[in-house]
Amino acid sequence: MKSVAALALAMTVAPVAGNAASGANDDVSSVAPALERYEQETLEKGLWARPGLSARDRSVVTVAAVITRNQMGLMPEQIRRALDNGVKPAELSEIITHLAFYAGWGNAMAAVDAARPVYAERGIGANQLPAAAPTLLPLDEAREARRAASVEQTTGPASPGLVRDTAEVLFRDLWLRPDLAPRDRSLVTVSALISAGQVAQVPFHLNRAMDSGLTREEASEVISHLAYYAGWPNAFSAATVAREIFEKRTNP
Amino acid sequence: MKSVAALALAMTVAPVAGNAASGANDDVSSVAPALERYEQETLEKGLWARPGLSARDRSVVTVAAVITRNQMGLMPEQIRRALDNGVKPAELSEIITHLAFYAGWGNAMAAVDAARPVYAERGIGANQLPAAAPTLLPLDEAREARRAASVEQTTGPASPGLVRDTAEVLFRDLWLRPDLAPRDRSLVTVSALISAGQVAQVPFHLNRAMDSGLTREEASEVISHLAYYAGWPNAFSAATVAREIFEKRTNP
Amino acid sequence: MKSVAALALAMTVAPVAGNAASGANDDVSSVAPALERYEQETLEKGLWARPGLSARDRSVVTVAAVITRNQMGLMPEQIRRALDNGVKPAELSEIITHLAFYAGWGNAMAAVDAARPVYAERGIGANQLPAAAPTLLPLDEAREARRAASVEQTTGPASPGLVRDTAEVLFRDLWLRPDLAPRDRSLVTVSALISAGQVAQVPFHLNRAMDSGLTREEASEVISHLAYYAGWPNAFSAATVAREIFEKRTNP
Repeated sequence: MKSVAALALAMTVAPVAGNAASGANDDVSSVAPALERYEQETLEKGLWARPGLSARDRSVVTVAAVITRNQMGLMPEQIRRALDNGVKPAELSEIITHLAFYAGWGNAMAAVDAARPVYAERGIGANQLPAAAPTLLPLDEAREARRAASVEQTTGPASPGLVRDTAEVLFRDLWLRPDLAPRDRSLVTVSALISAGQVAQVPFHLNRAMDSGLTREEASEVISHLAYYAGWPNAFSAATVAREIFEKRTNP
Repeated sequence: MKSVAALALAMTVAPVAGNAASGANDDVSSVAPALERYEQETLEKGLWARPGLSARDRSVVTVAAVITRNQMGLMPEQIRRALDNGVKPAELSEIITHLAFYAGWGNAMAAVDAARPVYAERGIGANQLPAAAPTLLPLDEAREARRAASVEQTTGPASPGLVRDTAEVLFRDLWLRPDLAPRDRSLVTVSALISAGQVAQVPFHLNRAMDSGLTREEASEVISHLAYYAGWPNAFSAATVAREIFEKRTNP
Repeated sequence: MKSVAALALAMTVAPVAGNAASGANDDVSSVAPALERYEQETLEKGLWARPGLSARDRSVVTVAAVITRNQMGLMPEQIRRALDNGVKPAELSEIITHLAFYAGWGNAMAAVDAARPVYAERGIGANQLPAAAPTLLPLDEAREARRAASVEQTTGPASPGLVRDTAEVLFRDLWLRPDLAPRDRSLVTVSALISAGQVAQVPFHLNRAMDSGLTREEASEVISHLAYYAGWPNAFSAATVAREIFEKRTNP
């Protein structure tokens, strides 16, 4: 088992140059020429350019997928692309923070490691980042009471600590942080759930996303976008759940 | 959080030498002597040598598992082992390309990064790789019509884009690429689904694999092989699903 | 796709210093100041210090989560923390060996790579490691017969090889290794299952853990601890299953 050594060797060999969309083709085509064709034709000229979901939202979804799946290889280029597509540094910071809880602490730490040199190279300083403890958005107490009652019923008997943390850390703090719009926060959460194959909580969060302004057309295209970045099986599982949600909602 | 720095330090310390099956024992036994024993006795002399599945097929399954699980550490040695076990470079290239769609784009990119130096060290050049856009295998229009109708019903109402891409990119292009036999392409797909714990789509793809020539004995041994490379829980989940499929099929 | 090259560049830039709990704050706050606050207040002063589960057990659970999720970034610091919290080197070695089977071979190999320099820096030598083939704990033949009969029924028709390996390699060897107490081995297994989102086998292993001495309060706090290290969705899925188990057990 010489895995890490071999990886280090590969790193020494790999050239340091170019960006995601150009100059890297020789690297891919020296192993899989078809993959280069799919990257150029199917992803770049197809998926990323098609209507139904803005390039900015596609970047939010893709960054969430890459962090959730802990794909250190894709992180730097997708973080750069997100900034290029109009995701603000403060929003990206909040996406990473949000995923510490929805994808796991280690996933967020790996994303911090990937984002740090990108922020440095673009001169993104503290004045462009969210405050550690900003004034929070107002809480919808009625909605929060309904959510808390539901979680108390399903989760309380098994883990009172989880119930308490869900209220105090997530819904009375994290979700109210102002530097990422609730609609985007839900978009990140839904993308993380689909990317991890965790469909059980998609109904709650997809409904919440649509209540916050995500359209049915956008939700539909989130799923087909994630087919490429989280794999077809996860997209199919998500589609089955989304169909039921779409059918139940009276207003789109 | 000094994770990446610590990793870099570990890499500097790790020696660059040897291959997977020998010379690496000191490395493993300095932390877990039992793991070295299991590697030699249970894996090398046991699993990889036993009947029911050829060494070549075991490599196809293992490479698919390692790429699906994004295990950069195991990739170089398993790619070398696959080539040693008779998987052709063109087949390996197709396996990586196929998994871009079934395991996710980032997984395939990490595999390209791992394969590139191996291809270079073995002098595998463009003439041994599949064409980016080769003449495709003939399409079984009746079977494809049945598949498309089924996906339209389950997925169409949620994501028309996913339905369209599934037909155009996957079943009318990727699956028809000639440099990986349909039986092997299905074997890769089933291995990816089991390795990711996504049993929902195992019935469709395991039936397809067996329709394309995978025997029941081979399928059975794929599951027990994957217990080691994807973990026992994924193998158990797969076995439950496979049992139902085996019972329903009239011919093995 | 310049992923590995970019990663290598990031590594060159990242400073090599400090430990997990201090000195790293600048690194995190240069990207996500809130994440640094959550790390200090919510994790360090909150989660790790609260009652219900010892710091030592929290380390067992966290190491299992990090290895199962293949998070190379967090491994070195969590391995150090486990040793600091009283997990013996021999126990850590057994945890890694155990997870080779429950999380997958590659996960254990990555953990070996992460542990090796930590063991070296702390002067942990062969005399502190478990034997490769020690005298095993006595087998509870009646319990093993019930387990084997159950697995034969669910898994035998699909994969005789898996049934045989489960008995010979796991329950008549791995589980009887003496350097990790059965209660801790079950704690590792349950943590791995929850961290991978594989709830199907949580009932068997959580019951086994509680039969071996894990209290209901501890099990409950394992779930809320894992919310942070495996993500909220996995913790919620586990809580639903745990509630049913708690309700069925007559004695805590």
